[in-house]
Amino acid sequence: MFDSPASQPSSQPPLNRPGPEQLEELRARLGDPRKVTTGRAAREHHSRDFSYHPPHLPDAVVYPESTADVQAVLEWAARHRVAVVPFGVGSSLEGHTVPLAGGISLDLTRMDAILEVRPEDFLVRVQPGITRSRLNQRLAREGLFFPVDPGADATIGGMIANNASGTSAVRYGAMKHQVLGLEVVLAGGRVLRTGSRAVKSSAGYNLTALFVGSEGTLGVVTEAILRIYPLPEFVLAARASFPDVEAAARVAVALIRAGVPVARVELVDAATIRAVNGYKGTAYPERPTLFLEFAGTEAAVREEVALARELAALEDAVDFTFETDPAAREKLWEARHQAALAIAAAAPGRRMMATDVCVPLSQLPASIRFARQVAEEHGLEAAVLGHVGDGNYHVTFMVDPEDPAEVARAEAVNRRIVEDALARGGTCTGEHGVGMGKIRYLVAEHGEEGVRWMRSLKAMLDPLGILNPGKVVAPAGQA
Amino acid sequence: MFDSPASQPSSQPPLNRPGPEQLEELRARLGDPRKVTTGRAAREHHSRDFSYHPPHLPDAVVYPESTADVQAVLEWAARHRVAVVPFGVGSSLEGHTVPLAGGISLDLTRMDAILEVRPEDFLVRVQPGITRSRLNQRLAREGLFFPVDPGADATIGGMIANNASGTSAVRYGAMKHQVLGLEVVLAGGRVLRTGSRAVKSSAGYNLTALFVGSEGTLGVVTEAILRIYPLPEFVLAARASFPDVEAAARVAVALIRAGVPVARVELVDAATIRAVNGYKGTAYPERPTLFLEFAGTEAAVREEVALARELAALEDAVDFTFETDPAAREKLWEARHQAALAIAAAAPGRRMMATDVCVPLSQLPASIRFARQVAEEHGLEAAVLGHVGDGNYHVTFMVDPEDPAEVARAEAVNRRIVEDALARGGTCTGEHGVGMGKIRYLVAEHGEEGVRWMRSLKAMLDPLGILNPGKVVAPAGQA
Repeated sequence: MFDSPASQPSSQPPLNRPGPEQLEELRARLGDPRKVTTGRAAREHHSRDFSYHPPHLPDAVVYPESTADVQAVLEWAARHRVAVVPFGVGSSLEGHTVPLAGGISLDLTRMDAILEVRPEDFLVRVQPGITRSRLNQRLAREGLFFPVDPGADATIGGMIANNASGTSAVRYGAMKHQVLGLEVVLAGGRVLRTGSRAVKSSAGYNLTALFVGSEGTLGVVTEAILRIYPLPEFVLAARASFPDVEAAARVAVALIRAGVPVARVELVDAATIRAVNGYKGTAYPERPTLFLEFAGTEAAVREEVALARELAALEDAVDFTFETDPAAREKLWEARHQAALAIAAAAPGRRMMATDVCVPLSQLPASIRFARQVAEEHGLEAAVLGHVGDGNYHVTFMVDPEDPAEVARAEAVNRRIVEDALARGGTCTGEHGVGMGKIRYLVAEHGEEGVRWMRSLKAMLDPLGILNPGKVVAPAGQA
Repeated sequence: MFDSPASQPSSQPPLNRPGPEQLEELRARLGDPRKVTTGRAAREHHSRDFSYHPPHLPDAVVYPESTADVQAVLEWAARHRVAVVPFGVGSSLEGHTVPLAGGISLDLTRMDAILEVRPEDFLVRVQPGITRSRLNQRLAREGLFFPVDPGADATIGGMIANNASGTSAVRYGAMKHQVLGLEVVLAGGRVLRTGSRAVKSSAGYNLTALFVGSEGTLGVVTEAILRIYPLPEFVLAARASFPDVEAAARVAVALIRAGVPVARVELVDAATIRAVNGYKGTAYPERPTLFLEFAGTEAAVREEVALARELAALEDAVDFTFETDPAAREKLWEARHQAALAIAAAAPGRRMMATDVCVPLSQLPASIRFARQVAEEHGLEAAVLGHVGDGNYHVTFMVDPEDPAEVARAEAVNRRIVEDALARGGTCTGEHGVGMGKIRYLVAEHGEEGVRWMRSLKAMLDPLGILNPGKVVAPAGQA
């Protein structure tokens, strides 16, 4: 349990840790010593992500300011056989940014420019270090927005790296649906450009798709061309409570079935609402609750909400409240936003573990019930949050990374939930990615053949194994 | 010009043509002699596609009936180093199904089962030989449909192979957005399963996306899990004529900008309407014309149409007619449906060449005007049809494949249109795929680095170069 995957394929010689001389050479190459630091605080900040996965210090943190800088780092890293781990804001949840083999944490936050905004083409070209909130601030001036919302204010580069999605995916899809093209610096320093500014293409193999979700293990994204969308004219948020998880899920499916382009549809289970009430002193009905958002023209939204009310009434919803004012909408969604925090607040000093299975829609209620039961059997205080229009949900709990028994118990819960989801035709991770935490499930999900080809892709694009070693694909014989 | 690409990478020994003994061995392996034919009629039917690309006879046509049959064929083909070219209904437009190196045409139409229909999960599992119309007949019973509509009644396998899209892509996306998982038989006969029944996943590299659009050059798809959608409650078709292409395109963009989820928005240029009038004896206004379809709840559709009328009026639309009855809708779209036929009817015995560039939306009017001008300079009768919500359009003309001067002239037109589109940030093919016809543009579009990695992917998955040789990637030194 929690055996850290080896840092490079076993057929490779071990990676090197860069010494002062090599780092001096890198500083000289980058032309500005402030682009490379070995300071303890910076290294600690770059030793982990937001999760319970154990930290590991990089030997240095490098702050490139251009594609040429990234090329220089990767050329240098290949020559010295040093690991490079791309880093955005460190909000990943499976240890993606942990530099397991030391080496360089490549902090891309200085490459945060919006290079091109083309409102009439519904696309934007950005550097990877920009956060989604900053991008959306800029796009709002054009009446446009970038829809993918994973919760955290992640960088676009990080969101590409793990194919993020979140609450709006039910309407707009995941990152892979938004990325039209990429500039990627490959292991060794060459630059690959994929895709174009056209929204459709059948011009050869889909290299873009190969990098979206590759978690920094196949190359470093230095630019992305993204689709953007008009801000809806009218937005309405709603909340309704149900007798059980099945009833709530049935309403979500019925809405989709009726062709309603629901903007968000989130499920929070009864025990989680209870935790929120305890944490915030609120009095939400302690029942499975749907949080909904509708967006479009006012007439269409009003019609959709009327339909949602009818469907909810058929399933004995005990209340159905809605708001159109932005502040009131925010307040109405508060229990959803607070759910994970309520769990976190009860466990100071602990770190987050979140399951992330995604199952066929019809399997969601049974999958959630199973997960809740397993968590309770193991005595874990857990929030259950579901992206119920996609069949993706999270069981979120806090663990003490220093307590091996507690970690083992949490991991056992995670494993049972994953195994159950795979048996239902689902996936071990709907949106958080593989990182370190899900490597152990990839063979169960994709078979030996699938993992073998993933390893071949890794070997093709990163023959020295220096890009984010120990993530996504385990060395042969370990998965 | 029209130099046929070599049939395998130059570093490979040439492929073999299977003799009677080898074919007898294959018949024995497949257990039923009727699965393998060398009859002239079958071989001729499988020698070409729907386009002007010169035919080439396969040595035999094989009709597998199961994944195990496909495995047997690919295992046999690897052993004897014989080319295998998957074939659906032969409706491709860039020579995809032409067996350039002879060998086997693998006709998948007997593998046409619908293996699983899961209405509550909005997904279906099918074999590759089923056509989209047959799939939709079955799904209609559930009030569901599969949206991708490339015009031809292609097989799902063929549509996966070239990442087809068509008129409904503006709302639903292309094939790559619909495919959740695949079963693929790889060169040599091993079976790879990708994806799952979950609508979202971040579980490792996106192997599914590698095969969608790979045109039978990386493996043979034997099963696919596809997303399906509720049939809209209410559908309305509309047609409007405009003073110029720019005005029509502006209306399309304004609709998208207003957040209208338009179901289809197609542009036909003035010269094409004129050809239709000449062919059908109709009297449509000989102006650039938008064909629109709106779908959803009746109230939403009525609101969308009202907005479309307003936007069209602002651009001096000379008429705006609409219909809700299915037969009348069909009639209203008739000029759109007849456009290519009108050109074809004027050129008996000739074969179709269709350009397929896709450009950023704002570039579409200028791209279409340029293309029309080039076609007229070369004295070509051409239909111009645009998927104007995606920036993708076709200039369709008929050529005599036996007349090298005519073919060269048509190809010169094609080349100028592609070069112009690439300069505008577009792609050489929005939906038809590369086949034989677009190989020559891939370096201009993707750069040497991009094509080099496509070649590496091909070499990784098909080291003997037996899968649809001469398509998508040219041997090194030829692109």
